Amino acid sequence: MKIPKGFTFSTAEAGIKKPGRKDLALIYSEEAAAAAGVFTTNKIKGAPVKLDIARIRSGMAQAIIANSGNANVCTGRQGMLDAVEMARLAAEGLGIDEDLVFVCSTGVIGTPLPMDRIRPRIHELAKGVNPAKGINPVKGRARTSIEDAARAIMTTDTFPKTAAKSFRISGMEVRIAAIAKGSGMIHPNMATMLCFIMTDLSIGKGLLQKALKASVEKSFNRITVDGDTSTSDTVLIMANGLAGNPPMAESSEGYAAFRKALDQTTGLLARMVAADGEGATKLIEVLVKGAATKKDALRGAASIANSPLVKTALYGNDANWGRIMMALGKSGIAIEEEKVDIYLKRLKIVEKGMSMGKDDEAGSLLRESKEIKLTVDLNMGPHSEEILTCDFTEQYVRINAEYRT
Amino acid sequence: MKIPKGFTFSTAEAGIKKPGRKDLALIYSEEAAAAAGVFTTNKIKGAPVKLDIARIRSGMAQAIIANSGNANVCTGRQGMLDAVEMARLAAEGLGIDEDLVFVCSTGVIGTPLPMDRIRPRIHELAKGVNPAKGINPVKGRARTSIEDAARAIMTTDTFPKTAAKSFRISGMEVRIAAIAKGSGMIHPNMATMLCFIMTDLSIGKGLLQKALKASVEKSFNRITVDGDTSTSDTVLIMANGLAGNPPMAESSEGYAAFRKALDQTTGLLARMVAADGEGATKLIEVLVKGAATKKDALRGAASIANSPLVKTALYGNDANWGRIMMALGKSGIAIEEEKVDIYLKRLKIVEKGMSMGKDDEAGSLLRESKEIKLTVDLNMGPHSEEILTCDFTEQYVRINAEYRT
Repeated sequence: MKIPKGFTFSTAEAGIKKPGRKDLALIYSEEAAAAAGVFTTNKIKGAPVKLDIARIRSGMAQAIIANSGNANVCTGRQGMLDAVEMARLAAEGLGIDEDLVFVCSTGVIGTPLPMDRIRPRIHELAKGVNPAKGINPVKGRARTSIEDAARAIMTTDTFPKTAAKSFRISGMEVRIAAIAKGSGMIHPNMATMLCFIMTDLSIGKGLLQKALKASVEKSFNRITVDGDTSTSDTVLIMANGLAGNPPMAESSEGYAAFRKALDQTTGLLARMVAADGEGATKLIEVLVKGAATKKDALRGAASIANSPLVKTALYGNDANWGRIMMALGKSGIAIEEEKVDIYLKRLKIVEKGMSMGKDDEAGSLLRESKEIKLTVDLNMGPHSEEILTCDFTEQYVRINAEYRT
Repeated sequence: MKIPKGFTFSTAEAGIKKPGRKDLALIYSEEAAAAAGVFTTNKIKGAPVKLDIARIRSGMAQAIIANSGNANVCTGRQGMLDAVEMARLAAEGLGIDEDLVFVCSTGVIGTPLPMDRIRPRIHELAKGVNPAKGINPVKGRARTSIEDAARAIMTTDTFPKTAAKSFRISGMEVRIAAIAKGSGMIHPNMATMLCFIMTDLSIGKGLLQKALKASVEKSFNRITVDGDTSTSDTVLIMANGLAGNPPMAESSEGYAAFRKALDQTTGLLARMVAADGEGATKLIEVLVKGAATKKDALRGAASIANSPLVKTALYGNDANWGRIMMALGKSGIAIEEEKVDIYLKRLKIVEKGMSMGKDDEAGSLLRESKEIKLTVDLNMGPHSEEILTCDFTEQYVRINAEYRT
């Protein structure tokens, strides 16, 4: 994986998660970077989210310090003091302005951060990203890989999530790399989700924010696991300009290439987050097409993707399309029962609102597939929208019944 | 249980459900009754629902024929022909006008009714409610009890649901009795739910409809299991006037007593439906008080009651109040984190948005309780609303993954 120039990573274990698991990560850019962010719409926001929302106004960042295992949400005044201290300690260790450090926390809500255990680790983290000390002199590589950083921000994720793309602007290579974590409380606007995107592109903060917002809208705002919306969702991007391209404008030749690479990066991560939904065994793409309006397409797809009954049926390898009709009907969109066609992958299972008698074939398709595409054609108009989700399993219940124990 | 005068029941086994389980029920009033109904808001409606919506305009009913195991939804033109035929056969057997027969079906969506097995049972059902043949000559009671009828309309319900109340109007006893079934797709407006209410009250159809609507609003529209809304939800009431009271007007002395008895009846059944949510181990009452508006109170309570994360935590005996805060925050209502108090039963677990450190006590309370009351005080205003729900378990997933297998 090609890492954008000037970015290094380090991780540490502060004992916030279970012993033996890294739970602190630091991402550092050797140059201060243009920065943009998109944050949870939940009215209850973690202290780090509040801090980052205030700091992102400057449009500049140089480091992100993140911990997993504790979200630092509903922790009152002390929670904000802790978030500020995490940033300050990292800034001291890195020798940079503390306003350039962003803080992200994910995990349990309502428990104070164990700062006594976190504090001593932060200087160690800062040393780890120092190019002088962080590069393995034998292999010539940073000692901490981007995968290590992705692993350190995991909570109930089952695998670390990374993605990278590169593109060229007038012969110069520009790189994008990103990490993300899921995997419960995943719902449009956004998800229990952290995503940190790094690029060596040279671009102004305003345009960076615009591009990020559009990209999140098409990726992380199109996935759902359980309909719950986290208090910690944060997507941050840092663009440090080390690729050496002339500062990018919206009219620049390379802007479309950047947008495409950014969308591919966020799209890949969103797909991983949906596939790694808590307890999931299947990735499910719900495409509603033929809708009268774009909003109808989105609401219809979201209603299907959020229906526990649809998701448990798919887990049970049962193409119980009646529940899809139910979910469409309850969404309140314009629909005529006798116009609805439904496809499981390419198999038409419902025509004009009625069964095609394909239960057995559909069951076989479900049994052999880890990725399912449900297509609903409302035959009411030209609009379509897609949402990614996963199936709903006993394991989801177990994970969330036992989360704090 | 005191049955309103003039109502009799019969049940039969048509092999729609598994062998050995009754799946047809007939409720008969010896006099044509004033009738009212409330139906699902889902845009996809079963054929029987469409038929009943048309018939209820007359405000008169004399019989309800119901089957479980198959909802007769998304079954096209044949579905409507089948619903009409069920009513006609029942009417023939009973010797009454077919427009006075209402049809309700609950169960799987999208599969045609097995009319070849249902048809021959309907005359048998009609014979069963005939007072001449239906009364056990030895015991002097109807052979089929109201519990039997309640059992015959069960799908994944684990127990039959019946309730009855009586009250007096100028010395005359008036009786109300009702049966209901749940237990997935349970959500306000309404539930995967059938409820049939019988009373011997004398009342006009307009006032009956008004009373029923108000009563449903406070009972079945205040429960949720999984946020899904069925295509078959139906509440019907028949009032045959055999109590002999002077026809009731809104200004009548007894109207308040009737409303109270009706609300108690629907309230009891709604509580049973929530407690018997698929896979549920706990009944959960979510009270949001101190809200700025009534709508905020309801939306806040619904968001908590529908959150899979809250419901799995309660299943795991974990008073994970951070998830309650998350659910409040995502609901979009007016909220200030530092004003929120949360109680588990009478134990205050959150004060001013922060933990009271009562996790262990709360865990014990949860472990020993089958009924949990969560009270959230937003401290923003005078409004409160309550919603009933249940916890969310592996068993819910299993039931719904295997429903059609």
